[in-house]
Amino acid sequence: MSKDKPSIPKGTRDFGPATVVKRNYIFSVIKRTFEKFGFLPLETPAMENLSVLTGKYGDEGDQLIFKILNSGDYASKITAQDLENGSKPLTPKISEKALRYDLTVPFARYVVMNRNEVAFPFKRYQIQPVWRADRPQRGRYREFYQCDADVVGTNSLLCETEIILMMDEVLSTLGLDDFTIKFNHRGLLAGIAEAIGANGREADLCVAIDKLDKIGQDAVNQELLQKGFTQEAITNLQPVLGLSGDVADLLPQLDTLLQNSDEGKRGLQDIRSMLSYLESLEVKQAKLQLDVTLARGLSYYTGCIFEVKVNNVQMGSISGGGRYDNLTGMFGLPGVSGVGFSFGVDRIFDVLEELNLFPEGSQTITQVLIANFDEASMRYSLPVLQALRTMGISTELYPDSTKLKKQMTYADQKQIPFVLLIGSEEMETSLLNLRNMRTGEQHRLSLTEIIDHLQTYFSA
Amino acid sequence: MSKDKPSIPKGTRDFGPATVVKRNYIFSVIKRTFEKFGFLPLETPAMENLSVLTGKYGDEGDQLIFKILNSGDYASKITAQDLENGSKPLTPKISEKALRYDLTVPFARYVVMNRNEVAFPFKRYQIQPVWRADRPQRGRYREFYQCDADVVGTNSLLCETEIILMMDEVLSTLGLDDFTIKFNHRGLLAGIAEAIGANGREADLCVAIDKLDKIGQDAVNQELLQKGFTQEAITNLQPVLGLSGDVADLLPQLDTLLQNSDEGKRGLQDIRSMLSYLESLEVKQAKLQLDVTLARGLSYYTGCIFEVKVNNVQMGSISGGGRYDNLTGMFGLPGVSGVGFSFGVDRIFDVLEELNLFPEGSQTITQVLIANFDEASMRYSLPVLQALRTMGISTELYPDSTKLKKQMTYADQKQIPFVLLIGSEEMETSLLNLRNMRTGEQHRLSLTEIIDHLQTYFSA
Repeated sequence: MSKDKPSIPKGTRDFGPATVVKRNYIFSVIKRTFEKFGFLPLETPAMENLSVLTGKYGDEGDQLIFKILNSGDYASKITAQDLENGSKPLTPKISEKALRYDLTVPFARYVVMNRNEVAFPFKRYQIQPVWRADRPQRGRYREFYQCDADVVGTNSLLCETEIILMMDEVLSTLGLDDFTIKFNHRGLLAGIAEAIGANGREADLCVAIDKLDKIGQDAVNQELLQKGFTQEAITNLQPVLGLSGDVADLLPQLDTLLQNSDEGKRGLQDIRSMLSYLESLEVKQAKLQLDVTLARGLSYYTGCIFEVKVNNVQMGSISGGGRYDNLTGMFGLPGVSGVGFSFGVDRIFDVLEELNLFPEGSQTITQVLIANFDEASMRYSLPVLQALRTMGISTELYPDSTKLKKQMTYADQKQIPFVLLIGSEEMETSLLNLRNMRTGEQHRLSLTEIIDHLQTYFSA
Repeated sequence: MSKDKPSIPKGTRDFGPATVVKRNYIFSVIKRTFEKFGFLPLETPAMENLSVLTGKYGDEGDQLIFKILNSGDYASKITAQDLENGSKPLTPKISEKALRYDLTVPFARYVVMNRNEVAFPFKRYQIQPVWRADRPQRGRYREFYQCDADVVGTNSLLCETEIILMMDEVLSTLGLDDFTIKFNHRGLLAGIAEAIGANGREADLCVAIDKLDKIGQDAVNQELLQKGFTQEAITNLQPVLGLSGDVADLLPQLDTLLQNSDEGKRGLQDIRSMLSYLESLEVKQAKLQLDVTLARGLSYYTGCIFEVKVNNVQMGSISGGGRYDNLTGMFGLPGVSGVGFSFGVDRIFDVLEELNLFPEGSQTITQVLIANFDEASMRYSLPVLQALRTMGISTELYPDSTKLKKQMTYADQKQIPFVLLIGSEEMETSLLNLRNMRTGEQHRLSLTEIIDHLQTYFSA
């Protein structure tokens, strides 16, 4: 057996109890919201067949997929020629499985495999880890959770509207009160390409515009020039990049700009429908902003696109999504329109920490620790322990009769709010000593009074 | 892009919504119980360094670990000589990470890495998938969840007692009323080895006895003979294998049998302590049975061992565990005693299905579907949709104005218990038509009445 100092792989994390509890708080708010909107949970295997994943994320993505070595005598499959040809062609000979890279491709695969059993429109959510062999850096991990919700099998703009509502509900429930949901439409981007005289170049336009926040307007122009956009097109684009104001100001300007583009008009119509549905609904905290420079990198979006930014916090987008028209086409099932979005849990976690928004007491698991003075006190405590648990109060009895100080430290480390002290006097009088660890107050109470007190305290 | 019919790897499973909901019901009962007993959640990465896992599960286990191919140009590390030497020595040259094989080794690794921050005794639970390259067969998967709870850093037999209570609570809460918690002690097995004249051979004795249920007494004897046990020892063993009766009958017989064995007497003392704690506590449904033939294969157990069997159901054990004295020793931290156990969720799932114990309605996610007749009905429905959700009722509005029959089928497929019908008459009168999908009853009610009705219905 190895006696080496153990470690974990680069870019992965252990989540200790305090962190798991906070993360579960975020997951539970997201899950509760998804379910309140009628989304059903799906779970797919960590491993997918390599052929299912390959070719779905571009060449760069393919490199970042973690491949699993075949079991058995894989080495006998390798020839001297293979070694000369290098790793890329060798991989499929010694690996047929890989770790999932996102939740979207497994979802598409599931829909295609189960197309006859699934109730369409299929509203599913999925909260599972994904793995990417990216270079680890601050905030970028090789294992991280995605929280996706998608509807496939309908074109209804009610779905887009509800994405805004779910983003608003999750983030409001988590206590955020200053965040902006930016939206745009791929049709507007296509229309803008037409309008500036770069018809059909919206893909390149998107990729460049998508970097506007990161690299600035000049660098974007430079990139467009390199990609073969004419100077005239770039000049025409500048006023568009500078468009500002609220959606009521922007829409008429865009009507004019995009009057000759069918795609542009489709985008404007979709946005107007979505906004008109929203008028009958209540948005709690989100600010809404039509941002014609919002592009989102993923080329499979075809309709509305979304991104959420927390204001006054240094942090990239914490949620995003959009409509796609051909997700299942990659597996031979064309014509299934869908729309989806996801939350970035690691970023939300950091925002809640920074803004101190994790609710106090949300990390409490054990509610009462019964101190262990000696064998007699321990035996006396056993029915008390059971009575508290039966009333739904999470309780533990310290397993050893060690120094009280050590037991109190244990309660502090585990953030246990109450300690019950049962010494010889308490056993005689049946009045047990309940100590509030935050205030330091102690009261002698009967077991019934203790249960009452604790139930009131924890239901508050 | 591949247009092949997609599939999932052998031995893995997609969990569709109905199954996820049922599995989550089991997980939530387990989790709630662990937390009620003061266990804190831990999550470790799916990938561990290969060196952390290798050598911990025996040669056979090492073969079953899924290894991850290194990123980058791994092929250039392979020489012609490597190909001749075969897969086993090649693997560490092209793979440095692997998927976790169980939750115990990662837990030990975590404790060692965080020994200075963890509050001892450390009570942790962990519910995560593990991966094994076993040959898939009925009931055996390559990806499956383990649900472990362990306490490390104390010798107290209160921990063993609480394992019995947790097994009892989880299974009783899930509705099982006929199951047996079998227990034994490694000291008894060591004592028996001494008593039959096979001193120090308890490891081989355990491995053989462990198969008693599967292969029968004769085959066990045969195996012991092959392993070099004397015929006399085997003859001496036979009355022990046949010991029966309840624990009150067995203990005095064992006192006599093991009177010359320190290990045996330690085992009997531990069992008596555990049982005496249990006398002050209430066991709900479990039958308890001291089974001196219970061995459990894992050689790292050193004290009490446990196994749970559901009676009158064809199914192996659904829970088990025991005390170990040197789990963290494999990573250079000796002397940390611990005790732990786990639940087999796949088996519990099958038992609950067979006994029809999943609670009715536990699969309901969407509680109300609002039918979509036309654009006017849809717009009228939006504030209704929001009002229901605000009251905590999971509600969806069918996104398209399609045939009502299709919408009703959708509600049936998703097991949605209520459909709200809002046609022109309902819009005029503000009395909405609520249909109970199970009984077929329909009532025209105001929105307030509907909310009252549904809240009463779902809180029942």
